[in-house]
Amino acid sequence: MKSDRRGFLKSGAALAGGLTLGAVAPAIGQTPGNGQTPGPEKFIKAGKELIAYGERSHFVTSVRIPHGGRPSPDTFGLSFHIATPLQDSVGVITPSSLHYVATTRGAFIPDIDPREHRLMIHGMVDRPLTFTMEDLKRLPSVTRLHFIECAGNRSTPRAKTVQETHGMTSCAEWTGVLLSVLLKEAGVKGGAPWIIAEGDEEVKGTSSIPMAKAMDDCLVCYGMNGEEVRPQQGFPLRLMVPGFEGIFHTKYLRRIKVVDQYYMNYNEYGHLRKDAKDAALGYQIGPKSVITFPSGGQQLPGRGFYEVRGLAWSGGGAIRKVEVSTDGGRHWKDAEIRGTAYRMAHTRFTFNWNWDGTETELLSRCTDELGQAQPTRAQVAKFFNVPLDSKFNVPGNDNSIQPWRIASDGSVHNAIA
Amino acid sequence: MKSDRRGFLKSGAALAGGLTLGAVAPAIGQTPGNGQTPGPEKFIKAGKELIAYGERSHFVTSVRIPHGGRPSPDTFGLSFHIATPLQDSVGVITPSSLHYVATTRGAFIPDIDPREHRLMIHGMVDRPLTFTMEDLKRLPSVTRLHFIECAGNRSTPRAKTVQETHGMTSCAEWTGVLLSVLLKEAGVKGGAPWIIAEGDEEVKGTSSIPMAKAMDDCLVCYGMNGEEVRPQQGFPLRLMVPGFEGIFHTKYLRRIKVVDQYYMNYNEYGHLRKDAKDAALGYQIGPKSVITFPSGGQQLPGRGFYEVRGLAWSGGGAIRKVEVSTDGGRHWKDAEIRGTAYRMAHTRFTFNWNWDGTETELLSRCTDELGQAQPTRAQVAKFFNVPLDSKFNVPGNDNSIQPWRIASDGSVHNAIA
Repeated sequence: MKSDRRGFLKSGAALAGGLTLGAVAPAIGQTPGNGQTPGPEKFIKAGKELIAYGERSHFVTSVRIPHGGRPSPDTFGLSFHIATPLQDSVGVITPSSLHYVATTRGAFIPDIDPREHRLMIHGMVDRPLTFTMEDLKRLPSVTRLHFIECAGNRSTPRAKTVQETHGMTSCAEWTGVLLSVLLKEAGVKGGAPWIIAEGDEEVKGTSSIPMAKAMDDCLVCYGMNGEEVRPQQGFPLRLMVPGFEGIFHTKYLRRIKVVDQYYMNYNEYGHLRKDAKDAALGYQIGPKSVITFPSGGQQLPGRGFYEVRGLAWSGGGAIRKVEVSTDGGRHWKDAEIRGTAYRMAHTRFTFNWNWDGTETELLSRCTDELGQAQPTRAQVAKFFNVPLDSKFNVPGNDNSIQPWRIASDGSVHNAIA
Repeated sequence: MKSDRRGFLKSGAALAGGLTLGAVAPAIGQTPGNGQTPGPEKFIKAGKELIAYGERSHFVTSVRIPHGGRPSPDTFGLSFHIATPLQDSVGVITPSSLHYVATTRGAFIPDIDPREHRLMIHGMVDRPLTFTMEDLKRLPSVTRLHFIECAGNRSTPRAKTVQETHGMTSCAEWTGVLLSVLLKEAGVKGGAPWIIAEGDEEVKGTSSIPMAKAMDDCLVCYGMNGEEVRPQQGFPLRLMVPGFEGIFHTKYLRRIKVVDQYYMNYNEYGHLRKDAKDAALGYQIGPKSVITFPSGGQQLPGRGFYEVRGLAWSGGGAIRKVEVSTDGGRHWKDAEIRGTAYRMAHTRFTFNWNWDGTETELLSRCTDELGQAQPTRAQVAKFFNVPLDSKFNVPGNDNSIQPWRIASDGSVHNAIA
């Protein structure tokens, strides 16, 4: 039989006489499955609810956790942030139930009846309009894969796991109407340079968005991963501002006002910017990438072959290249980009690696379609003029390279001490 | 402001002075959102479980329903089939909770502990191997968008809704190891022409799959839509056989045996085929397409602009073209294919339509990368030599064109009387 092991050979992880996984057992004398004769207790009772809308296995326990120093999610009246378990991620879709959440304008999730919800387009327009959800669903739609990332992602550089260091980013298949379609129907008055977007939250804060961005690729979304947008993500309507910081992606969208200038609106955690030019650059400073397996807190069972996996994304467009180093940054090799690298979307990369059992560091770095390369920690510290120490933090999104240390016992640690 | 309405103009649905939706109201004097002052009852209490793993809005009630004449899902000991609510679908991902289910080898859903699960590769191989789930997750992975469709989809041609007529197909982002990787590591003995795949179900039935297909694009999947495969879809391991009938996509996969001939195995509902050549052609007879909006049972609020939406797919590869007729099949125009049309994946199409309020029929038809065109009902009836009547049914997958009748009151009906 013709054998094709180019993939393994390319990465220097050639396998001879079977996989070098160590744990793979010969099949002789073994029983497949779980080796047990099924009894009634082995089956899940498929009740009516499970049939109407299915559930995951009770053996799967991957969950979101509060981010960084944020208060407990049970502490009402305060905002909370919860992070996606990136260490368990596969592919590029984040399940809607595990999408990160940042409540930025009040901690409460509005419980909105979609039949009563309205979106108003007004301000400097020829024809102010109000849309019901039914109206919006009749209009030309687009479906796009996009990440949303909180500006505070990576603000805990010393944390143990990738969920804690990078879990404030997620990616979903979003469906909705291009904002440009609505603005064109309302008729933007000549030269209006900004819009402000407002959601139906406790605090009626708004985000100022440049008109050029609004007319380019912003989406008014009612669909997420094939169903309605989830309440924690803005049900029934969320504004997508691809590549911009999460706070721009206005949840419970109820109002778009076309305005004559940049308005410095309510925004927490230093997002306030007096300078319009500075504010207009409020997109992700990506490109950014992180290895999700192996990552901090995980345990390798022993030497041998592993597929290193990670995610890369950028506010500047599509990911063009990802490189991986398995020796602490001395040598870099191209990783494989899996599937289509979409603009402003998580992109899965993989790298075949044969671990010899000695301590080392794994790193990834990426380059986007604009040619922007992911910087080192030293470069980011220098750029923001902050000390390069373990409490490293920057007044913006930190997209520096993440190193994971593999100890000789197979345990994996955040190498930023 | 430069206005770009090419999309509308192209379809003859040009809009002047605002959208012709009828219901869109001027914004003057209106209140956006739901117009109410928020009280405490307006918010969802974000309890610990909702934070760990989120839920959809209680206002969203889209559910799966039992398919055709199948017994109630509560009737244990019998198989049940439940169908996806395609009428509510957006984009191309089917949420895992709404993915169709067909229990084909016993009605019970095995409750498998993934730590105890094993996959055995044996038979005509040089090195029989047994894999744990951990072993499989170390290997090179791929992520692909694929549909699965039950051969019995469309077996109820007179049903009212698209969920009832076409809901036994779904599409997800699947992640796993190429079966060819495992077979190459085990070493297939020269010339072995078939494999059989067995799952850990009540009935240990198997599916025979040609070696050429096994070595091409079959996937041993542990991931689905960014998390573990769901129990109803084969947790912890499902074999994907892209484009083949659903029953080949073996759930709870525990054994792959390389064999010297086609084995006629247990398979319900006439899937048994004595002839190996016939059996090897057990893929979807697509290409197939259906309009999901507007579809049977839905109600248009009035004349004006609508985006007609639907799904197209084929067992023969990627969808190349979709056409829509809004006059009962007399004239056909190209629909827009949204996003990338992947091989053996649902592909979303849209078509801009301005309804004049008179009764008509909407139809869609598609062509795949092999040049195969979706046939009419008359063509399928002739091919299978069955009468072209309302009970029309074929001994295989029916991929004929679906007509929806729009009555002058805006109600939508299955035009197959």
